[in-house]
Order: sequence, then C-alpha cells, then structure tokens
Amino acid sequence: MADSAAGPVDLVVLGGGSGGYAAALRAAELGLSVVLIEKDKLGGTCLHRGCIPTKALLHSAEIVDNINESETFGVRSTLDGIDMAKVNAYKDSVVAGLFKGLTGLVKARGIELVQGTGRLVSPTAVAVGDRVVEGRHVLLATGSYPKTLPGLDIDHERVITSDDALVLDRVPASAVVLGAGAIGCEFASVWRSYGAEVTIVEALGHLVPLEDESSSKLLERAFRKRGITQHLGARFAGVKTTDDSVTVSLESGRTIEAELLLVAVGRGPVSANLGYEEVGVALDRGYVLVDRELRTNIPTISALGDLRPGLQLAHVGFAEGIYVAERLAGLNPVPVDYDNIPRVTYSHPEVASVGLTEAAARERFGEVRTVTYNLAGNGKAQILRTTGAVTLVAAPDGPVVGVHMVGDRVGELIAEAQLITNWEAFPAEVAQLIHPHPTLSEALGEAHLALAGKPLHTHG
Amino acid sequence: MADSAAGPVDLVVLGGGSGGYAAALRAAELGLSVVLIEKDKLGGTCLHRGCIPTKALLHSAEIVDNINESETFGVRSTLDGIDMAKVNAYKDSVVAGLFKGLTGLVKARGIELVQGTGRLVSPTAVAVGDRVVEGRHVLLATGSYPKTLPGLDIDHERVITSDDALVLDRVPASAVVLGAGAIGCEFASVWRSYGAEVTIVEALGHLVPLEDESSSKLLERAFRKRGITQHLGARFAGVKTTDDSVTVSLESGRTIEAELLLVAVGRGPVSANLGYEEVGVALDRGYVLVDRELRTNIPTISALGDLRPGLQLAHVGFAEGIYVAERLAGLNPVPVDYDNIPRVTYSHPEVASVGLTEAAARERFGEVRTVTYNLAGNGKAQILRTTGAVTLVAAPDGPVVGVHMVGDRVGELIAEAQLITNWEAFPAEVAQLIHPHPTLSEALGEAHLALAGKPLHTHG
Repeated sequence: MADSAAGPVDLVVLGGGSGGYAAALRAAELGLSVVLIEKDKLGGTCLHRGCIPTKALLHSAEIVDNINESETFGVRSTLDGIDMAKVNAYKDSVVAGLFKGLTGLVKARGIELVQGTGRLVSPTAVAVGDRVVEGRHVLLATGSYPKTLPGLDIDHERVITSDDALVLDRVPASAVVLGAGAIGCEFASVWRSYGAEVTIVEALGHLVPLEDESSSKLLERAFRKRGITQHLGARFAGVKTTDDSVTVSLESGRTIEAELLLVAVGRGPVSANLGYEEVGVALDRGYVLVDRELRTNIPTISALGDLRPGLQLAHVGFAEGIYVAERLAGLNPVPVDYDNIPRVTYSHPEVASVGLTEAAARERFGEVRTVTYNLAGNGKAQILRTTGAVTLVAAPDGPVVGVHMVGDRVGELIAEAQLITNWEAFPAEVAQLIHPHPTLSEALGEAHLALAGKPLHTHG
Repeated sequence: MADSAAGPVDLVVLGGGSGGYAAALRAAELGLSVVLIEKDKLGGTCLHRGCIPTKALLHSAEIVDNINESETFGVRSTLDGIDMAKVNAYKDSVVAGLFKGLTGLVKARGIELVQGTGRLVSPTAVAVGDRVVEGRHVLLATGSYPKTLPGLDIDHERVITSDDALVLDRVPASAVVLGAGAIGCEFASVWRSYGAEVTIVEALGHLVPLEDESSSKLLERAFRKRGITQHLGARFAGVKTTDDSVTVSLESGRTIEAELLLVAVGRGPVSANLGYEEVGVALDRGYVLVDRELRTNIPTISALGDLRPGLQLAHVGFAEGIYVAERLAGLNPVPVDYDNIPRVTYSHPEVASVGLTEAAARERFGEVRTVTYNLAGNGKAQILRTTGAVTLVAAPDGPVVGVHMVGDRVGELIAEAQLITNWEAFPAEVAQLIHPHPTLSEALGEAHLALAGKPLHTHG
C-alpha cells in the first residue's frame, strides 16, 4: 500500500549507516519529517562491520601486546590464551551498547525507522516491500561492500572479506592479507598481536599507499620489527584452496601458504538492483555522481557517504549527513571541505594524517617546507616505548598544509592537527602555544617550534 | 677564580630544570653566550623526580590494570608479580635516554654547563665553588621542592615525599596520601593499580580541588569504584610512626593505619641560602616576585618556573624559558598567557583541562553556557571501557573559555582544546570541523556540536 493518504514526508533516507542516520537526526532536529529505511541494522557498516568492531579487536590486541611485553615495564605476567568467543562477546557488547543508544536517539527525534530493503521507484519515492514511501526529497545512503578482484572468489571460509574476519571464531595460525590500506593493515596488526604468521601483499609500492611516503616507510619498518612479512609492489596472480589452507601465488612466481586469505582491496558502492539506474540517477562504475552540494543529476535526490566517489570514512558521512539536512532545511550550510579530513589507520603503531602529503604539496606549491620530529625525543613516546614521527608540510612562507604522524595513539592527535590545517595556521602561531608535558601531543608542538625556526628539544 | 679575564657572558642561568635549560637552549640558538649552572642533573625535577618518572610508573600501572582486566577484552592472563626493581629500571632507562638527549643538545648548542651549587653574589654574578661566573643577565631557575605541613616531619622511611615514593623498592601494602592535587592523585592511582590499599586525605572538599567541580566529582566516583578511600574536607592532625607502620590521625578523631604516609601538599620554592635576599631580590614567602615579563625587582635578574608564584608546570617553564631568552635577545616576544595553559592529572582515569572552570567563568561573565558530553556515547571510550565526560564552558554568545575532561587518555585531547581556547574559537566554528571516527577526540567535537545547537550523537 502507498502512503499517499498521509502525503509525502520531507525526507526519505535510504540507508541507516553513518551518513544516512546523521542526515535523519539533523533533519528531524530541524523540524523536517523523516523516514529512514534500513535493510539490516541501524548504524550500518561502521557500527556493525567496520570502524567499531575492528577497533575493539585492535584494543584486545593491544592488551595481548601489553601482556607479552609486560616485563619491559617491570610487570611479570603470563598470557594464558586468547578466547575468541570472549573477544567477540566484548566486541559485540560495545556494538550493542552504541546500537541501543543510536536506536533510542532516532526514536527520540521522532524519525520513522522502516526495516526492509528499499528500492528507488521515482525521483521522490522509495518502495519497501508493499509500501511506497513518498518524500519531497530522497537521500541515497546505501554505502559500500568489501570488493574483490576479478576472478578471485570469496568463499567466506578460506578466502574471506573483512566482514568474515570480524566474526572469525578462532585466531588463524597464519594469514595472507591482500591489500595494505587501512583495513588490511589493521587486520594484519590484530592477527600478528594474536600470534599469527602474517604476510601482506600489496600491488603498490608501500603500505598505506595513500599516506605520505614517510609514514608508509615508518609503518613498514615497525611492521617488519613485529615480524609481519611484506610483499610490496607485488601483484596477486591467484589462489588455490584446500580444506585447511590457501596457497596464494604472485605474478613474480612466489607462492605463500597460509590458513586463510583476507581480501582487503577496497570497498565498492552498494548501488545495484536498487532502482537507481531505472530512475535515471547518473552513476560512474557504480558510484552515484554528486556535485559539491551532494546533489545527484536528479534535483530531488541527493547521495552521500561510501556511495559517492571519494573518501570512504564514517566521519565524512556524518558531516555530509549534517550538511544535506541543513541544506534541505534551508540553512545555507558550507559544503564539506574534503581537503582537510583527518585519516587514521588504527594499527600498532597507528598512522594518522590530515591535509596534503609532501608530494601533493610540492605539486600544488612547487617548493614546500617540511620538518620531521622523531618520537625518540618525546617523553611520553619513550614511556610507551613506541617509535614514529610527526612530519609537517607547510606552504612556502605560508600555513601548515599537511600533518603526518606514526606512533601508538597518534590517532588522537590528529584532531588538533585538523584544526591547524583547517584554520590555515602558520607554524609560528602554533609554536607560540603550549602543549602539556609529558604527552605525545608535545611532538606536534615541537614540530611547529622547529618549523618556526625555534626548535626546543631537537637539533633543529 | 673569577672569569673576569674572559668578560661576562650574555646569560647566566642558575638551575638546569625545564625553565632554565629551555632558556639556555633558546638563548644559545639566538647567538647569546650562556653558562648554565646545575647542582644535580640537567633536566631538574621534571625529568628526574617529577613528570617523567611518575608517568613511567603510571604506564607500568596501566599495564597491571590491563592484565587484571584482560578477561573483559577476551584475553586470559595471569599477573605473576610486580618487580619493583624492574619497574624502577624501566623508569630509570626512560629518564636516562631523555637525559642523554638533553645533555647532547646543550653541548651541541655551545652552552657551558657548570656542575655545582650556584650562589647569587651580585646582580650580575653567580658563584660556584671558587669560581664566579659574570653575566650581563642572570636567570634564576632554581625550582621547587616537596613541601610538608608545620610539625609534620618527613623521615623518608614511613613519612615520605614524592621524591622518596619514586625510588621505593617495594609496593606498599597500604598507603595514606595526604593531599589530592595532581601528585597525590597520581601516586594514589599507581599504588592502587599495584594492589595497595590507598586512602586519600584532602583538606579541601574535593579531589583535584583546582579543577572544575564536575571533573573532581567524576574522578571521585572513578576512584571510589577503584576502591580508593577518600576523606575529603578532612584536616590532618598528626602521625605516629612505628618500625613498620604509620597511624595518621585527622582532626575529626578518625585514625588510619598504613604502611606509609605520602605527603603531597604542594611544592615550595627553592630560594633559601642562595644569596637571593642578600643581593636584594624581592621575595614573597620564598617565591621570587616577577612582573609579566618575568623580571625581578633587579633589572639584570629574571626568574621563572616553580620559583615564582603561579602554575608549577614543566610546560610553563619551557614557554617562560623561551620567552626570557627571546626578550634578552631583543626579539620582543609576547609574554606567556597564563589563562590558557593545559593542565593534566595523569591518573586512571586522567583529568585534563584548559581555561576557566564554570565557577570562574560565572564570576567573570555572569551567565555562561555549558554543555557536558558523557563518554558513554563515545565509541572509543566504550572500546577502552573508560568513563568520564567532556565539559565545555562558553561566554554568553561568545567563544569557548574552558574545557574540562575526565577519562583514560584524555590528556592527549587537551592539546586541541588549548588551541580552541587560545584562539577564542566559537562553538560553531569547531562544530563545523571533522574529528576522526572512532576516537576519543570525537567527544570534543560532539560537545561543540551540542553547544552550537546541533547535537549529533546526543539527546541535546
């Protein structure tokens, strides 16, 4: 049955992940009537199969590392075992708590949540089963799925995706990770902490290949020290599976045997068989094309998040959702600035960055100024026994345009860095300010002191 | 013998702690000739008896907590013991590494380091043993020592200071901590993690009484849950010691028996018997009085750090040292702004703040706006299983003037907060920017979203 009797709502959101629910929450807050359609669970990939559960595994892995290295800190302990059922129960309880909070929030804001697979049927309507939900505007937020390579079949047993890896009931004795982006590096890190033999295969020349080369190199060194084997610039040729193993072959002829193969070669848009093409939404290789204001080619339809070309990050989805809601409510908001979005890989050690890499800055400005502060000089880093660095990239006689960090817990430092790049701060302006001692954040302060020509705890 | 043949140097620094060595390093960098006089070890209290060694103990304590709570994260482990000799070896090796770096830096900058107890003998000269070092300017940077109360004798065995606590060769079975400032709370936290029965006695009504009341209350709750006994608003009456215990009595008549008493009632200035009074330097209860430009009443003498009235923090010392050096070099620097200095208590959980408390802001502005974001809504906090909150204080229709946080690892977040308060950012300006998901730093972003009237993951 159609909802026509009730008339159209202000906004129909198709997909209840980070971008979709943020738009729904903000729109409802601004007085718009909202229907939110979700086929699975509110919260989407990030909450159920992405950011949150992976970080729970990473924290459990940190606990294992702490136990294994406790003698370093004067504490004698024994690792008695990793109980994956309990690890998963911990992970699931974190997710469940946040899911409960989110569900309550959506309800409290008066958003109608429709459970079911939605299908776009017109520029202003989405069908869910027998029901057709009419809206003055439709927001497509159907997200992404773990991709594979042509000819590489996922069997979910020996050849798995991150979705499968998150519900694994055991620690693999060994694993090959195909793809060294954030997802691949995070699972490699977790499994290595858990004691697995891990081999990373990456077609490009570096781990986290989108990061500044200096960060990639630091992560490569740290992973080597942790005993993670790396084949960089190595092309995947094929995989053979048996009942209890995989044999991965590379184009070089090398073969690697392991208990399983994790395919982490990126995420593709969920846009097929949802009526997008039939209604005339312009796509490019499955991605929904949008302008700077996140409008598709159809005026009543917007799209955001992993579904459109560009950065696939939950916090970008949040910002885009808020933006679209405010635009629809007539608030004239500023579009999301994609140049200064913080990016974090939560491995051990972490990699965090914002703004331009040195290479990108050189392309834009010609000459640039850079400074690297080694965490060896940072008191808190010495206390944590972590290694890494903070690298700043600045325009000639201009503001800081890129910040790149490697080290345990540096993901928390990039919040300050994004203020610096977003506010186009000059090195001397940050150098004037005081970071608390002894924290990792001092490394950011020291790097700015050095870039401002007044190095304190460095040879300058 | 006097150095008169060589003529005066540009700057004589008396005291090689944070403030003194920072001034020496920056002055040398600016081309001034510098003699740095230190009676003990370069690095002073912070490096050898303060910030650094206490944070090493706190990290070792975090490792113990992780082992004890590892089942929560799905990891089975056994705590086999805390080996204080090894804990101290770890702590000492962190200190030694930083000491080596600092020593190398001082040498590389061409600073003459004189080992010995200096004594001010004129407005432009310091005597060290037989030698008199003449300088065009003298910087007093002799720091502070752990105070006690009148009639309360430190025996360094049963009744100890933080200096003694840092070299303790055992974990006390029980301890009374007198004074609930940062130092007292940090040792209470460490010893409790190590398994001791800990009782805090504080004359004022709250733990960390200089912090916003909301932070104090959160810390009190967290410490109660950890089993740390607290007597707040409780006045110390006396202590009796035996060979293996102390009995502390309060004015209320209550007595507390423990293995030892840590006196952490603040730090006093090291200014006696150093020639300050004889040369005519104006003092107030032992503190050297300075103006905004850190000049004493004698034009050729400046003073900084724990020695002058005000905040006793290493990072303030660094900033003051840089400031004095730049002033002496004729650079016309901006004096240190004491309103927006970050403050961190590194206990479990941590307490961090910058700017005005709510009470102080009400005094200054009349009405203020505040918002509190509970870490229960923050994904990373749930992963870490930490509790706490971020509280913002803003002037009416004005910028953020205070940020107060409680929770594990929030000390790293205050670096961003100090940029916000120092740059007088409006809530909406920060709300526009994007924090990475899932990090603790998002709590700061969410609090700003709420204060800007657009709460995302909160009920607003």
